[in-house]
Amino acid sequence: MSQLNDSLAVIKRGCDELLIEQELIEKLKAGRPLRVKAGFDPTAPDLHLGHTVLINKLRQLQDLGHHVLFLIGDFTGMIGDPTGKSATRPPLTREQVQENAKSYQDQVFKILKPEQTEVVFNSTWINELGAAGMLKLAASHTVARMLERDDFSKRYKGNQPIAIHEFLYPLLQGYDSVALKADLELGGTDQKFNLLMGRELQKQAGQPQQCILTMPLLEGLDGVNKMSKSLGNYVGIAEAPQEIFGKIMSVSDELMWKYIELLSFESLDTVRQWKTDVDAGANPRNIKVRFAQEIVERFHSRQAAEQALADFEARFQRGALPEDMPEVSVRVQEGGVPVALLLKQAGLVASTSEAIRMIEQGGVRLDGEKVADKGLKLEAGAIVVAQVGKRKFSRITLLS
Amino acid sequence: MSQLNDSLAVIKRGCDELLIEQELIEKLKAGRPLRVKAGFDPTAPDLHLGHTVLINKLRQLQDLGHHVLFLIGDFTGMIGDPTGKSATRPPLTREQVQENAKSYQDQVFKILKPEQTEVVFNSTWINELGAAGMLKLAASHTVARMLERDDFSKRYKGNQPIAIHEFLYPLLQGYDSVALKADLELGGTDQKFNLLMGRELQKQAGQPQQCILTMPLLEGLDGVNKMSKSLGNYVGIAEAPQEIFGKIMSVSDELMWKYIELLSFESLDTVRQWKTDVDAGANPRNIKVRFAQEIVERFHSRQAAEQALADFEARFQRGALPEDMPEVSVRVQEGGVPVALLLKQAGLVASTSEAIRMIEQGGVRLDGEKVADKGLKLEAGAIVVAQVGKRKFSRITLLS
Repeated sequence: MSQLNDSLAVIKRGCDELLIEQELIEKLKAGRPLRVKAGFDPTAPDLHLGHTVLINKLRQLQDLGHHVLFLIGDFTGMIGDPTGKSATRPPLTREQVQENAKSYQDQVFKILKPEQTEVVFNSTWINELGAAGMLKLAASHTVARMLERDDFSKRYKGNQPIAIHEFLYPLLQGYDSVALKADLELGGTDQKFNLLMGRELQKQAGQPQQCILTMPLLEGLDGVNKMSKSLGNYVGIAEAPQEIFGKIMSVSDELMWKYIELLSFESLDTVRQWKTDVDAGANPRNIKVRFAQEIVERFHSRQAAEQALADFEARFQRGALPEDMPEVSVRVQEGGVPVALLLKQAGLVASTSEAIRMIEQGGVRLDGEKVADKGLKLEAGAIVVAQVGKRKFSRITLLS
Repeated sequence: MSQLNDSLAVIKRGCDELLIEQELIEKLKAGRPLRVKAGFDPTAPDLHLGHTVLINKLRQLQDLGHHVLFLIGDFTGMIGDPTGKSATRPPLTREQVQENAKSYQDQVFKILKPEQTEVVFNSTWINELGAAGMLKLAASHTVARMLERDDFSKRYKGNQPIAIHEFLYPLLQGYDSVALKADLELGGTDQKFNLLMGRELQKQAGQPQQCILTMPLLEGLDGVNKMSKSLGNYVGIAEAPQEIFGKIMSVSDELMWKYIELLSFESLDTVRQWKTDVDAGANPRNIKVRFAQEIVERFHSRQAAEQALADFEARFQRGALPEDMPEVSVRVQEGGVPVALLLKQAGLVASTSEAIRMIEQGGVRLDGEKVADKGLKLEAGAIVVAQVGKRKFSRITLLS
């Protein structure tokens, strides 16, 4: 029983909800490897740490001996946006799906064990359903049941259109569980309704029902919004070691514990010990360094992790400049260029107003000197090392 | 223009609604045969006059030179009740569908011209849609739009379940129009929403939109409820000439005009003349006879129509007995059989209480004598001619 409890503790670590725990205990007791399902979009993946929360959990389940069904939702991907309204969701070809699947594997096999991972494509069984199978699937649930889903309910009440095919997506996701005979399905907290569909359709099909495990959304570096590429608060798993390391070191001490819970593979015992140490006065920065190194090592190598730490310390602790600073040339008009415009042209800020804000906050340095005057102009012929914030550097040559 | 107006008058005769009349005029002006669609259930057909209202209209369109697409909805028929809850809608095999289609043709070709009729099966193009096509079709409309349909709206508000596939049926019916490139679709008044789907989906598909023509439901012989087999107020087209003739003669003079409008192929001018004559004092019975003969001739022959009239007159006008009276033997217990039970055993009434009611109303005769005594008993050994109502006769032999 103690081993079972340990397994359960690992499975539940960081999760939002496990349904139904007692059923999962029975499945674990049976001793055979569980079929663990997780679904992914077939669009070109460019994973960040937020995505890896779920993938880490899959890895933990693999470490416990279970079998991962890495489901690529290519059936809907090959349809694209069926309303034709969204230009951002063009239909993918079979070749594009295969390419994206390859790209997924390149990325996720940095976390998952390939020998315990089966990559599956739901077009296989959904195309086989045919028009008749889709109709039967649609017959399995009522409109009222579907309108219970939180977002549908809000949209319906708010007179926002819901296209009928949107009612079919949760059913298709549920049918995937039937086709795969899943024992456990993982998803984000926002997926709970769809995950429960799997349970219902398995029951209708006379199968044992899957358990469901929902994982929370990871906050971004700002500690406020969810991690997302469009919000710019993300750590991409393909980013350079120095970037990953630096970004992780920038998170608050509080957010660090959340990240460690969801992203670190250190044992629960170790993490508990760290907390005890910090409560007793240890510097959380040392734990953050260790955690940042773990993440860099996962996506690059041990050596890269050590180099990233060395660079980081050299840069921030001894005030040195990074070795790999970008070189930029900017053409300057007669009469010089205002510093804010220069920073924008060098790509260090997105806009001159951002530059001015950074100067006001004391976050801009030229050749190591803090810039105090927003009106400062620079003449052609100069070469300056510009720094914005802690981690953005550029060596700028001003051409006439 | 006069010919066009005549055509339009024939098309609109007895109809409930024509949408959109101006569009239909344009189509008629173009001069090519219209593709006229009407859909039928693929279940075993046993047509009554109510069903023929629509088929008659198709025939009138054929007489105007148009092409009928007689659509058998076998796609859904081969699925049956997809919820599995209704035992009365088992899935049909392809062979059963073919058999039923054959039976339909045997019946409808008494009205339709085979050379201007194309029997089509919607499984042909719907199966080809596949799961992906179904999803796209579902994307073409919103949940809110579908809930506008009167019966859905009532059920949703009344917390009556609506299974999701029910939203797909109107879309499939609409898609049939796209697949068939229909110019005009006919249906019952209750089908209006579904017929309009055809227009919408054709528009989305970039096709000219079909017009729609709805026909009213035919009242049954009682003049109150719609004609229906289960209500017993119907005239089956496969019934014997005498039955059809007698049943039509039994309708009220008022209902007769409705029947003539929807069921007779006499010209509008002729019908107008009849009405003028009746208003001027002519006996409507003579018109009813002529109409009843028209219907018998349609489903049997001219000869059968004349024979039916002769039989009818012999029976009711000269008080004679029908020639083809059924012969029944009934075993009678010691002490005799009450007349009510005898009538039930002879199959002339459904129950003894019906028999008693008929006796009370003066509707039962034995050997031509009205039965006044409900308690009357008959002994074994007798042979009597029993009559219930106007048209039910039986020669009963009472055995010991």
